[in-house]
Amino acid sequence: MPQVLDVGDGSQDALLVRVRAGRYEGWGECEASPLTTMASFVAPMSHSACKPVGELVIGERLDSAEDIPRIHHKVRTGSFDLLQSYHTLSGIDIALWDLIGKRFQSPAYQLLGFEVSYAKTPYASVLFGDTPSETEARARLVAQQRFAGIKLGWGAFGKGSLKEDEEHLEAARAGLGWERALMVDAGTVWEELEAARERLPALEGAKVTWLEEPFPGSELGLYHDLGGRVPLAGGEGCNSAAQARQMIDYARLAFVQIDAGRVGGITDAHRVAMYADTRNVKFVNHTFTSNLALAASIHPYAGLKEHEWCEYPVEPKPLAKEITVESVEPVSGRIHLPEKPGLGVTVDVGAIEKYLVETEFKLDGKLVFQSSADLLKS
Amino acid sequence: MPQVLDVGDGSQDALLVRVRAGRYEGWGECEASPLTTMASFVAPMSHSACKPVGELVIGERLDSAEDIPRIHHKVRTGSFDLLQSYHTLSGIDIALWDLIGKRFQSPAYQLLGFEVSYAKTPYASVLFGDTPSETEARARLVAQQRFAGIKLGWGAFGKGSLKEDEEHLEAARAGLGWERALMVDAGTVWEELEAARERLPALEGAKVTWLEEPFPGSELGLYHDLGGRVPLAGGEGCNSAAQARQMIDYARLAFVQIDAGRVGGITDAHRVAMYADTRNVKFVNHTFTSNLALAASIHPYAGLKEHEWCEYPVEPKPLAKEITVESVEPVSGRIHLPEKPGLGVTVDVGAIEKYLVETEFKLDGKLVFQSSADLLKS
Repeated sequence: MPQVLDVGDGSQDALLVRVRAGRYEGWGECEASPLTTMASFVAPMSHSACKPVGELVIGERLDSAEDIPRIHHKVRTGSFDLLQSYHTLSGIDIALWDLIGKRFQSPAYQLLGFEVSYAKTPYASVLFGDTPSETEARARLVAQQRFAGIKLGWGAFGKGSLKEDEEHLEAARAGLGWERALMVDAGTVWEELEAARERLPALEGAKVTWLEEPFPGSELGLYHDLGGRVPLAGGEGCNSAAQARQMIDYARLAFVQIDAGRVGGITDAHRVAMYADTRNVKFVNHTFTSNLALAASIHPYAGLKEHEWCEYPVEPKPLAKEITVESVEPVSGRIHLPEKPGLGVTVDVGAIEKYLVETEFKLDGKLVFQSSADLLKS
Repeated sequence: MPQVLDVGDGSQDALLVRVRAGRYEGWGECEASPLTTMASFVAPMSHSACKPVGELVIGERLDSAEDIPRIHHKVRTGSFDLLQSYHTLSGIDIALWDLIGKRFQSPAYQLLGFEVSYAKTPYASVLFGDTPSETEARARLVAQQRFAGIKLGWGAFGKGSLKEDEEHLEAARAGLGWERALMVDAGTVWEELEAARERLPALEGAKVTWLEEPFPGSELGLYHDLGGRVPLAGGEGCNSAAQARQMIDYARLAFVQIDAGRVGGITDAHRVAMYADTRNVKFVNHTFTSNLALAASIHPYAGLKEHEWCEYPVEPKPLAKEITVESVEPVSGRIHLPEKPGLGVTVDVGAIEKYLVETEFKLDGKLVFQSSADLLKS
């Protein structure tokens, strides 16, 4: 967006990945800082476990869906966190599934082994207001849109007094009524158990479906000690299936939330979904951006009927809306994946051109990366 | 280095951070891909939890050591993994401790609360040979240098057959003798328990002090199930104290290895050391690069007498050697931190100038980052 505001809205910029193989093309989206991610694609090799992602993927053979885990593994072992490779890999992996789906005229979920795609129940994901009355107004607005659930997150919640948080929760229920599910996202605001624990009665009183991210994802012990009374959700910060398995195993989660653009793409998201299913933990996508990211995040658990909730960004910025030709809208309160090849959505190159930021990296005077409108249209 | 080889040697490039406040200056080093890290310093803000690290630190007040955790926390909460901020923060945090030590004419370890700095016992860290006879030759060479321990890592180990690994371990002992400690670093080579477990008898036979990184650091369950028979070491990949605490709590580690340039600087490394000390886990630095990085990695546990081992890079590239004026050499087989202000080592700006890679980022034609020899000397 021309202006990026200092708020917890991840749809203000986007980093798209286009992959080509033969005469096919696929698109993906990374959930990460664009400039940093582009740097990781072209950075000079530091050593054998810190190679630029571009070097690891360009020129690889891509004949079938079986090639994707192989390419994925090559990136995982050739480049660690030292290079931010996981986010870059995520966008590429999504693009590979899109491409191979188009090649075989099959939706990505079928290539993952699911026979059918079950409709998901979207919840609207919006930010808390700065005041309880603002929160109430937002909840009321979303209630009119007939979502079965609403998640309020970030904003003022958890940063002020216990009393203020109680008022926000009461305001949310006042605006939303009691028929719909209410989720609360604390956005990793607390660092100590007690701050979270003293909010539990108010959260129980508001009958929340889950409390999301009370702590940073690495605080497995804090999650575990808090869990039991109010269902906990978390996992959006995971950069691999292994990291998500840790949370499932040790953090007493009721819901594991995975962002395909951050966890390692559809490949890792699908692994997490299948593991969660064996552990009685519900998989939920984490998506706050485009319909491309939304589709990419639903394919990994499309065939798991019991895993019903689906995060649906209701207030994305125009940039995020314009990325795809199609809009994945709720139908009778349910989200259906498009039954089309690959991700099932089409990137609108003409529409997004105006948002492109021309980017150039030069090392010792040599151009090592360029992103331009000409390249976008080529 | 003019040429970076595809080997597990992290001293082939370096990213230095210089911090200035008033008339003082401090230096740090990041353990990360330089280009990616520079991008994270200047990337445009994506949203409220994805801000460029530069914006979060430049202009902050720095009057005493108490300001460092505050600045540190500002970066941690203003920018997540989405922007590779942890590595960038690490270098900055190290530079802040260096600067504030110079300001108050005190070694960093004293500002951390330690009264004295205990000498550490260095082990030489070298790569496995491609063949057992090459491994034996390397072990023999290091044995002549009178290190009390040698760690062999990466290279061919774990990638071939069980028999080949047994031969490498026998060769290591043949070259090293039985008086010195032998550590083995598997470099996260295995993905399944069995591959690691079948090597345990050979590792026991070679009386290894520890087996390091059998699996990626997120595989807490695999570590736990492998542990008990051979002491396990790991943690170099941690990007926060919380992540290291996870490994201490769940992975049955005997040794936790922390890279100050990756974990979040001296601040987080020190937190890990103090926690490890309460859990009967030994803290060891992870360092494969310069004497600046070595000093930065020892200060966090300098005052913990029982935590004796210290990783010492014996074959760093000329670049890594030339970064500091001083060389932190073993004296009578022990490493003593220099009793000087800050980190205790001085960056040799004149010597490293020749290695500088001129770097430029442009966004929509506007220069947002430049690293040049002129700036280095200014």
